[in-house]
Amino acid sequence: MSDEAASAVLAGLDALRGDVEDWYRDLHAHPELGFAEHRTAAEVAGKLRACGYEVTTGIGGTGVVGVLVHGTGPVVLLRAELDALPLRERTGLPYASRAGGDGAEGRAVMHACGHDVHMACLLGAAHLMAAAPGAWQGTLVVLFQPAEESGAGARAMIADGLAERIPAPDIALAQHVFHAPAGYVGTRAGSFLAAADTLRVVLHGRGAHGSKPEASVDPVVLAAMVVLRLQTIVARELAAAEQAVVTVGSIRAGEGANVIPESAELLVNVRAFDEDVRARVIEAVGRMVRAECAASRAPREPEIEHLSSFPATRNDPEATARVAAAFGRHFADAVRAERLTPSDDFTEIPRALGAPSTFWVIGGTDPAAYAAAERAGTLAADVPVNHSPRFAPVLQPTLDTGVRALVVAALAWLAPPAA
Amino acid sequence: MSDEAASAVLAGLDALRGDVEDWYRDLHAHPELGFAEHRTAAEVAGKLRACGYEVTTGIGGTGVVGVLVHGTGPVVLLRAELDALPLRERTGLPYASRAGGDGAEGRAVMHACGHDVHMACLLGAAHLMAAAPGAWQGTLVVLFQPAEESGAGARAMIADGLAERIPAPDIALAQHVFHAPAGYVGTRAGSFLAAADTLRVVLHGRGAHGSKPEASVDPVVLAAMVVLRLQTIVARELAAAEQAVVTVGSIRAGEGANVIPESAELLVNVRAFDEDVRARVIEAVGRMVRAECAASRAPREPEIEHLSSFPATRNDPEATARVAAAFGRHFADAVRAERLTPSDDFTEIPRALGAPSTFWVIGGTDPAAYAAAERAGTLAADVPVNHSPRFAPVLQPTLDTGVRALVVAALAWLAPPAA
Amino acid sequence: MSDEAASAVLAGLDALRGDVEDWYRDLHAHPELGFAEHRTAAEVAGKLRACGYEVTTGIGGTGVVGVLVHGTGPVVLLRAELDALPLRERTGLPYASRAGGDGAEGRAVMHACGHDVHMACLLGAAHLMAAAPGAWQGTLVVLFQPAEESGAGARAMIADGLAERIPAPDIALAQHVFHAPAGYVGTRAGSFLAAADTLRVVLHGRGAHGSKPEASVDPVVLAAMVVLRLQTIVARELAAAEQAVVTVGSIRAGEGANVIPESAELLVNVRAFDEDVRARVIEAVGRMVRAECAASRAPREPEIEHLSSFPATRNDPEATARVAAAFGRHFADAVRAERLTPSDDFTEIPRALGAPSTFWVIGGTDPAAYAAAERAGTLAADVPVNHSPRFAPVLQPTLDTGVRALVVAALAWLAPPAA
Amino acid sequence: MSDEAASAVLAGLDALRGDVEDWYRDLHAHPELGFAEHRTAAEVAGKLRACGYEVTTGIGGTGVVGVLVHGTGPVVLLRAELDALPLRERTGLPYASRAGGDGAEGRAVMHACGHDVHMACLLGAAHLMAAAPGAWQGTLVVLFQPAEESGAGARAMIADGLAERIPAPDIALAQHVFHAPAGYVGTRAGSFLAAADTLRVVLHGRGAHGSKPEASVDPVVLAAMVVLRLQTIVARELAAAEQAVVTVGSIRAGEGANVIPESAELLVNVRAFDEDVRARVIEAVGRMVRAECAASRAPREPEIEHLSSFPATRNDPEATARVAAAFGRHFADAVRAERLTPSDDFTEIPRALGAPSTFWVIGGTDPAAYAAAERAGTLAADVPVNHSPRFAPVLQPTLDTGVRALVVAALAWLAPPAA
Repeated sequence: MSDEAASAVLAGLDALRGDVEDWYRDLHAHPELGFAEHRTAAEVAGKLRACGYEVTTGIGGTGVVGVLVHGTGPVVLLRAELDALPLRERTGLPYASRAGGDGAEGRAVMHACGHDVHMACLLGAAHLMAAAPGAWQGTLVVLFQPAEESGAGARAMIADGLAERIPAPDIALAQHVFHAPAGYVGTRAGSFLAAADTLRVVLHGRGAHGSKPEASVDPVVLAAMVVLRLQTIVARELAAAEQAVVTVGSIRAGEGANVIPESAELLVNVRAFDEDVRARVIEAVGRMVRAECAASRAPREPEIEHLSSFPATRNDPEATARVAAAFGRHFADAVRAERLTPSDDFTEIPRALGAPSTFWVIGGTDPAAYAAAERAGTLAADVPVNHSPRFAPVLQPTLDTGVRALVVAALAWLAPPAA
Repeated sequence: MSDEAASAVLAGLDALRGDVEDWYRDLHAHPELGFAEHRTAAEVAGKLRACGYEVTTGIGGTGVVGVLVHGTGPVVLLRAELDALPLRERTGLPYASRAGGDGAEGRAVMHACGHDVHMACLLGAAHLMAAAPGAWQGTLVVLFQPAEESGAGARAMIADGLAERIPAPDIALAQHVFHAPAGYVGTRAGSFLAAADTLRVVLHGRGAHGSKPEASVDPVVLAAMVVLRLQTIVARELAAAEQAVVTVGSIRAGEGANVIPESAELLVNVRAFDEDVRARVIEAVGRMVRAECAASRAPREPEIEHLSSFPATRNDPEATARVAAAFGRHFADAVRAERLTPSDDFTEIPRALGAPSTFWVIGGTDPAAYAAAERAGTLAADVPVNHSPRFAPVLQPTLDTGVRALVVAALAWLAPPAA
Repeated sequence: MSDEAASAVLAGLDALRGDVEDWYRDLHAHPELGFAEHRTAAEVAGKLRACGYEVTTGIGGTGVVGVLVHGTGPVVLLRAELDALPLRERTGLPYASRAGGDGAEGRAVMHACGHDVHMACLLGAAHLMAAAPGAWQGTLVVLFQPAEESGAGARAMIADGLAERIPAPDIALAQHVFHAPAGYVGTRAGSFLAAADTLRVVLHGRGAHGSKPEASVDPVVLAAMVVLRLQTIVARELAAAEQAVVTVGSIRAGEGANVIPESAELLVNVRAFDEDVRARVIEAVGRMVRAECAASRAPREPEIEHLSSFPATRNDPEATARVAAAFGRHFADAVRAERLTPSDDFTEIPRALGAPSTFWVIGGTDPAAYAAAERAGTLAADVPVNHSPRFAPVLQPTLDTGVRALVVAALAWLAPPAA
Repeated sequence: MSDEAASAVLAGLDALRGDVEDWYRDLHAHPELGFAEHRTAAEVAGKLRACGYEVTTGIGGTGVVGVLVHGTGPVVLLRAELDALPLRERTGLPYASRAGGDGAEGRAVMHACGHDVHMACLLGAAHLMAAAPGAWQGTLVVLFQPAEESGAGARAMIADGLAERIPAPDIALAQHVFHAPAGYVGTRAGSFLAAADTLRVVLHGRGAHGSKPEASVDPVVLAAMVVLRLQTIVARELAAAEQAVVTVGSIRAGEGANVIPESAELLVNVRAFDEDVRARVIEAVGRMVRAECAASRAPREPEIEHLSSFPATRNDPEATARVAAAFGRHFADAVRAERLTPSDDFTEIPRALGAPSTFWVIGGTDPAAYAAAERAGTLAADVPVNHSPRFAPVLQPTLDTGVRALVVAALAWLAPPAA
């Protein structure tokens, strides 16, 4: 596919940019939790239909797929995610989340992972591609999956018959915004994102009045011992070269100061690039949890529930070389990315559909602010990362970059227009 | 006051017993949190009015006082508490809490501290005293305070003008049910219940994606370090003879597994009998919390808020000797109790009203079950204590004992009837 | 026995005081570890023989007993201890320990528990009693036992036939210096000193190069987890009123920074006044050690060795009343002491010999310094306690008080002189 | 240099093998600590003189250098180490360390790092090179440095004028045995071994009798808190990709169970490949140590002493390519090695002498045992690594491989013999 095709399609970006930015601000202001993205899915479906896509909704709960056929040619699948996170936004932006968890609205919700960026960019790319039918030939499948954060959304769409409901893709593509400077585009062949597992651990103690520790088995102290024990997995049971992360993202026990509660709950997140390391970490979590319960003479065995499991994201070498080459021609700054510890369930889709895949990342931080923080040595403090309540991608060049990358990568496969 | 007066008043107990038990079961099934005891206060006020008390409601929010004047004589104040705890009941009783926190009801609530027992007994005693006007002379003040669990209810009534709204008492009396065998009655002169302080500690970290610990200051790990540090106060900074308890009753941080949260919250409860020990423990909590935050390079100072402070309960020696003597004549098993680590804000009331006071405890556990557990060495496992979700006093002889103790203690002051 | 007898015996104290002080300084400068008190035992035996005692040496290793018979009458046993502690002295005194562990001398040793005070006082009392034969009648047995610190010395003397080698005593008496103001004398009937158990815990890990934690089971981290776990016994598994102390007095693992060692060793000391509490603490130590080893996937079970066990010291009520009365007549400041957490194996001797016993304590701190520290609230920082490398009793009135107390207590039993 | 030269030199290996093995067993049986390698240095010097080297001893304490000049040509420096570790050997070998630390010998010492292998191989290579003067031309410098384990030995030789006392080398070469299968030879250009820093941390508490924790600031509990805190550096303050190791190799506090000691000492070893990571880890150690002391209200600031600092080992790319090529021609199994976390002070020497350098590793484990453990998944348990008290390289093919590698690498530089 020639670069002229990309130029032709992207010629419409100047006119569309304002819409893409409006869509982004609207999606950001109305985040919804996984499998409950009803408003979001309706917005997405409406916008796809408005530019001519044949849209199917409700796949795997709230999933949306739009299909646009332009003559004969390869089938390219582009994927974005619908869901947001249960976080209280602290960006102070005028378009900050209106789901603040106040009043009758329930929990606070926030697009703190950039799925709003992904959706706005994919809607933009879908519009541009639809508006330039003379530039390409083939089939474009734009897929908006639910519930990426829990690792269940891609599987839900597959279980709901995705393979039978869309044309079989020749390539599946997806992108993710993160805290690199806006304008950055990067990918790498092979191992890219980590596998991730989430474990829910319930530690059973024995409740008592707060003044009667001797009548209790204190689950708060037990939970603290477990949290510290878990630090020794990465620090002592893995080699320096065996990259893994063990995060206790949530700890909860008790309601009041003067009651020793009955139990404590931990949510544990494990990241690893290697299956052997992953297995050893999960074994260690179980071993340590059980032994600490024994040390506390817990009256019942702990519960360890495997809540979710994300596969490692591995980019097909050949397909990724093609995407990287196209990026290299289009972007000044496209780079070979390092491995990243976050995870994504995107891989489930090409795996189920039998297609090769490429995943890439784009930057979302104001480049000047990034450079200043880098000079000051305060990157960690000053540049909010994904899942931070202060995560706030700058609109541009973030959105432009995401639109461009999708168009450029898709056109690396789609056939030239019939002569 | 002669023992014949007690016999005369308590002659009505056989007929009233069914009502007292019904009141207890109804109160137990409808627990309400502190300062929200609207139904409870209305029930209590109605029952007092029904037997002739002049009733004032809404003192200090939801507090209720009933006054019954029988000629000239001493003024005796008897006190009970209206509030329940934010706990999900696990007793399986037919009259278990209907405030289960399901549906639209909000949080689960439970009378797990026995305030329902205290109310039913005080209503029973109030009825019996009213029904036997010939047996005594003086003024009976029955006071039902809100929000004992937070240590704020007694002070709220005082701040709302309690002293000006009731006759000045010559003696203030209160009782508490606990996990001793039902039938047990005990008191002691001097130091009886511990002082209690509740601290809310907020530990500020820095949030990040769960796979990026290096971008975070992990408040979950920090909280675990603090919890373990706090164990060393009682274990290492106090002498064996300096009795104190430091309980972290609640620990909360994070919503999901894959987000390192911004902060963690601990609720810490401190018990001590001695002012010097109390001060040293509170100093140590602050020192340790601040130092652990420094070790974690926390970006902000922790917040340490003094949520509540219960005074130590000290029984007036002379008044308590009189109560103990009356108990000794009436009960086969009245004993000199040991010091107890729970706390109560009852002391605020006699202190504010300038009256001496006596506090006593009664048992609530099935005596046969207690004896069996004692033989088996399983008291801690098998006998639920106050604030346990399984705390379930047996109806009898618990309620009879509570009614009798109130009547007997009150009559130790009230004048004999005018000839 | 009349107080004149005490006056008659103690009339010699002014003349003897310089000798007692010299003996004390010499003993302090030449400390020896338990069962190796060869020089100390020889000094003691020589001084006893010099004033007429019939002396037996080598009982239970290095134990010494001197017997002085003055006609017919009760047999009174007075006991002191020979051994010192493996500590490097930091008092800066001119007569500080010469066993500094430098050069070929082996370990540093120090009289940091006051056994040198006890010996000097008992030698002084023995001389005064011998020098005043007209003041009393009966048999005086002065016993210097080895190895009190390990709890093995009294048992060693008993196992070596003590009962057959000395006259059966009618009363056994002992004293201990501690950090109260010098001049203080105190005792109490019943429970006085705690029982003490010493456990040696060996935690087996797996050694490796310091850069290869993944090849190791790190016993240093395991030992740290165990130490923190043990803090929760007193803090969470005992009631506030159940007095106990769990001290890890020694932790040892590894020789160099870059080798993860094979194992770690802890020495754990447990104090309790109550047999049930003692048993629960020892069970908890074993449970926690084993569970923490399991959490670390230790390749071998830990070793838990019961190194020593001191009985609780309980004073015979009748005998102690007699001693307290004599103290009350002789000393201005004799008081009823509180229970103390230290332990002593003295009780083994009267138990084995079938005699009642009384144990008392005397102060050793400069009274002015003590009062100043008390006013400043710096007692803990400024007044070194037993087993501190800065423990340094002032010579007077400490030594005078100890001599007087022994004489006064002994004469409370010994018969008046034959007319 | 042609491979025929290597064949010519190594033709003598069959005859020399028995001597090399004897030297190894003798050196292994007589290990000596750093800067005290008097017997070892004498043995080495004698053997070098015996085959014609001009030997200088006592450089930097106990360092030995032998120089052999064969006509004109490049100068090649080969380096080995003299020192052993303070470990008690547990191999059970007939030639196990005779420095067992018993009797008057002082501490147990063991060649657990393979320096005995390095010395025996370098002596063997030196003999073979000296015996084949017709095969090469140039100058061979064989250097045996003291005290590698403390990181001080290479610097001591440099400070003692090494540069002025030997011919300036054109290349510096060194090797290390580790737990790969014997026969293995591997190297890599660029970053190879980690930088290593050793910190001695003294935590000051306050001593007291073991029964008086309230009079103490317990340094054992403080040390345990520090050890657990340090685990959070690798687990939480570094990214998964930032390879580092923090090992507490030694923890020491207290002598007896019933004395709370005055202080505790930790030896902390830090490994990192990157200067920024290294600096952040060392900062974190200091921060955490100081904060934990504050949490314990330590009476004095902790002492943190930088005992040693090993540079990272980086192989010169060009020189290493030449060595790797020569290995590739000579050995069937020469491989490109992975980065390794151990450290070595070898780099100090070429840095001071201005020469490029190459470092390589050889295997020392019985290949059959290694393969069996690999199949069983028990490598970590069954194959002792360097610094383990069970580290026991098999004599062959370990020693042959080490001799061959030194000869082959040296001859990659030395000029062909003058025609």
